[in-house]
Amino acid sequence: METDRSGETAINIIPGTKANGTGKAPVVVSSTKAVEQPKRGVKKGIAICDFLLRLCAIGAAIGATATMGTTDETLPFFTQFLQFQAQYNDIPAFEFFVIANAIVAGYLLLSLPFSIICIIRPYATAPRLLLLIFDTVMTGLTIASASASASIVYLAHYGNPNTNWLAICQQFGDFCRSVSGAVVGSFIAGAILMFIIVLSAFALKRS
Amino acid sequence: METDRSGETAINIIPGTKANGTGKAPVVVSSTKAVEQPKRGVKKGIAICDFLLRLCAIGAAIGATATMGTTDETLPFFTQFLQFQAQYNDIPAFEFFVIANAIVAGYLLLSLPFSIICIIRPYATAPRLLLLIFDTVMTGLTIASASASASIVYLAHYGNPNTNWLAICQQFGDFCRSVSGAVVGSFIAGAILMFIIVLSAFALKRS
Repeated sequence: METDRSGETAINIIPGTKANGTGKAPVVVSSTKAVEQPKRGVKKGIAICDFLLRLCAIGAAIGATATMGTTDETLPFFTQFLQFQAQYNDIPAFEFFVIANAIVAGYLLLSLPFSIICIIRPYATAPRLLLLIFDTVMTGLTIASASASASIVYLAHYGNPNTNWLAICQQFGDFCRSVSGAVVGSFIAGAILMFIIVLSAFALKRS
Repeated sequence: METDRSGETAINIIPGTKANGTGKAPVVVSSTKAVEQPKRGVKKGIAICDFLLRLCAIGAAIGATATMGTTDETLPFFTQFLQFQAQYNDIPAFEFFVIANAIVAGYLLLSLPFSIICIIRPYATAPRLLLLIFDTVMTGLTIASASASASIVYLAHYGNPNTNWLAICQQFGDFCRSVSGAVVGSFIAGAILMFIIVLSAFALKRS
């Protein structure tokens, strides 16, 4: 309809002065640009936000991985054959946690160049879609690892009398604290990734 | 640029015949429509896919909730004071599972009208964005509940000698089987939701 109307306006003007009619075209173009300029700014702002959030998520994921991976507590007492030691690889869920968070941190690092491309070219949809698809998968991975570990941490803290699983945090207090911190870090990374997905959707949306 | 060019074409024609100039406008509009028609079809197809996937996800979520909620195994032997019984509410992670999956199923049911709006109006961005935001949150909830329960199910199957948590599936075999099925159902719902997010992004994308 816009095209139709501008065509009509041009027709009304030309009978009076023909020079004015040809002079009209640049005015129309510049007004279209003026409308697109703030939109471009918004898209660019979203892309910059996306980049900064990615940096935060990298921090959270690397922090969670490092905390979980380096946690190691040896109790001060030991018998002749046994030394009581707790490490992340005693529990499969924590191993999965370390692997998953390392993958997510690696992916986020690799995604930074694509995020920069989105800042430079705010209207490019291909890199943004690619990022969104992988972000969705990585969000799933992060949340899965965090909550799998969270349920084990809960068990370590409180135990479960119905199944005779006893709490181990009375003995391994420091271990439990570090592990809980790592789980929180991973949940933060997951939440940031979810926010990044929503931001990407806003950036993709037709205005 | 399209507006600019059509304006110029109109100007070139008018000096010859003024009636032809006004007749030109509908031709331009109809050609624009012809380009938009297949795109509209694609968007409509995506919206219909979205609706069908939502139905599948509802099935998976309700199935998971019902399976977990109704699982109940009583062992055939009992002592004078104790009867050995396993139910989902013996383990906090399974309670969370039932609540989370019920919420997700409820949300998916409520989202169906919005999905239908997206089928009727394929170019509407507001309902689609709203759906995408809530879908992202619900995906997180589904995957969190599924993997929290999965780590407990793993523990119930294999136990953990390092922490002295013994496997309970030797005794409660049927309980473990039902619970594993429910977890798988919930993961399927989560995967479908992730696919719905990616589809929504494609529907939102500027063409």
